[in-house]
Amino acid sequence: MLRTRFTEEFGIEHPIVQGGMMWVGRAELVAAVANAGALGFITALTQPTPDDLRLEIERCRELTDKPFGVNLTILPSIKPPPYDEYRQAIIDSGVKIVEIAGSNPATHLEHLKPHGIKVIHKCTSVRHALKAQSVGVDAVSIDGFECAGHPGENDIPGLILIPAAAEQITVPMLASGGIANAEGLVAALALGADGVNMGTRFMCTQESCVDQKVKEQIVANSELDTQLIFRTLRNTARVADNEVSRKVVEIEKAGGSFEDIRDLVSGQRGRKVFENGELDAGIWTTGQSQGLIHDIPTVAELVSRMVSEAEQIITGRLSELVAEPVAARS
Amino acid sequence: MLRTRFTEEFGIEHPIVQGGMMWVGRAELVAAVANAGALGFITALTQPTPDDLRLEIERCRELTDKPFGVNLTILPSIKPPPYDEYRQAIIDSGVKIVEIAGSNPATHLEHLKPHGIKVIHKCTSVRHALKAQSVGVDAVSIDGFECAGHPGENDIPGLILIPAAAEQITVPMLASGGIANAEGLVAALALGADGVNMGTRFMCTQESCVDQKVKEQIVANSELDTQLIFRTLRNTARVADNEVSRKVVEIEKAGGSFEDIRDLVSGQRGRKVFENGELDAGIWTTGQSQGLIHDIPTVAELVSRMVSEAEQIITGRLSELVAEPVAARS
Repeated sequence: MLRTRFTEEFGIEHPIVQGGMMWVGRAELVAAVANAGALGFITALTQPTPDDLRLEIERCRELTDKPFGVNLTILPSIKPPPYDEYRQAIIDSGVKIVEIAGSNPATHLEHLKPHGIKVIHKCTSVRHALKAQSVGVDAVSIDGFECAGHPGENDIPGLILIPAAAEQITVPMLASGGIANAEGLVAALALGADGVNMGTRFMCTQESCVDQKVKEQIVANSELDTQLIFRTLRNTARVADNEVSRKVVEIEKAGGSFEDIRDLVSGQRGRKVFENGELDAGIWTTGQSQGLIHDIPTVAELVSRMVSEAEQIITGRLSELVAEPVAARS
Repeated sequence: MLRTRFTEEFGIEHPIVQGGMMWVGRAELVAAVANAGALGFITALTQPTPDDLRLEIERCRELTDKPFGVNLTILPSIKPPPYDEYRQAIIDSGVKIVEIAGSNPATHLEHLKPHGIKVIHKCTSVRHALKAQSVGVDAVSIDGFECAGHPGENDIPGLILIPAAAEQITVPMLASGGIANAEGLVAALALGADGVNMGTRFMCTQESCVDQKVKEQIVANSELDTQLIFRTLRNTARVADNEVSRKVVEIEKAGGSFEDIRDLVSGQRGRKVFENGELDAGIWTTGQSQGLIHDIPTVAELVSRMVSEAEQIITGRLSELVAEPVAARS
């Protein structure tokens, strides 16, 4: 067992979180994570309507009696989804933990806190983490440059970002991005985090709904096999290296606009990758941590292996390095 | 005391290394590092001639009777310095540890190994670390994206690069880039390193020869205050954010060539920064770890603080997280 401020304050067994993942954060995975004693999040916007989200939360409740949360990610969009209605669905469903990403959490907090909902804010800079803390979030999840999805525009990896944030953040803090095994978990704890958030690693488990071909590709990929797209739009995304992402990078380098790549990056093409295993159908999200992923375990195997290996690293390998000075030995 | 394979095999007290730094790796700093029980490296090419290097090594010997090494960095150059003569100066001076960076170490090994010299190879990818190991280096130092100077072109931060390398590297391994305190040291050890290499942190000590204004700027800077230059030349360097580096980035973005920036990046301009504290005179090297640097200690204070805090993190904070399951407690 690894007990941290995060496990205590959020009432979960292990300091491991499966955060929001578009098309991936569905009831089966989230329930498996909960049943393994970790904290999973249903991704609100993967559900086509707020009512579908209500059903998905119900479905998850049937699969686990342990706590789980819902992720609500606000991203720049020409035709934004009805965020307020999704948020109301979360409140009405009695979910008690929400992960907010992509915007100032203040307005959401106003609505969520009166219902006793704990809010984790996901961000990519110390400045935004401090801002979120100042408006009253219950925890921050800080996402390094190595992460899948949206690393922000500052390019600060976890090895710097986690301790830099830890110097100033007083609420529980999760390290996100680049973590896929026990070594990463212990490193994050050493750097001052109270737990870790993992996306790519949970995507590559038995209970994840993505096509088997995607999981096998993650295992086959090394840390080198990602691309950063949308740099020119200042909305950078780390995605799998494939025909489509290379083409997007090429168009961006040549000075192309969003209009030039719009069709290539359609979410429906991404769905084809995840749902049908058409690996070159579109853009799909994965992180550099895929270089550390070598198998497709069940969620329970993954979580229990990470925790027991992390304990061994702390009480075994690391503790054995601490030697008495020679003078004190004799 | 922290004992690792690295401290044992290299005969030093602490698993902390001050690697090569142009204009910075001089006798006073290297001797202070040695006297503190860590491993310092004189930077060969900071000396104008191989004979000056002989004198610098002698000067260092007068300041310490502990082991130290010499760094030899091979970089793309139109008029390369006489590397073979520098190498011969190292051999003749009886130095027993050499850090090689920037090229295949095979030819150097051929010359150095017959003299009982241990060779550490510095590189930025798992592939190059494996190559170096296969040709017989005694240790590898693996440099993540967050590092000062030359991070390579793959952009893999230490949180991924260290454990990915640790899975395959069997010789002792140093984690380099982004480490400036005890938290980073413990994280690196957790990720599978046998020690850490620090540049920026040692540059910002009392015994470092750089102007006080540079040290104060490092303390003032955050992790955000660096720039990546020479990306377009595929010879990326992470340097301090200042007027000159911003101008270089601008010219590169506009499609400029090396000829267009040659004057701006002259080494003599960089010397003016380090030697006279003219912070905007030229390009100067610093890493993202500056965001974790808040003081200008003596080298002895720095090393002893890092080691004792690292011990406390391992035997205190981390070990206290490991709890018996509730069932086992009663």
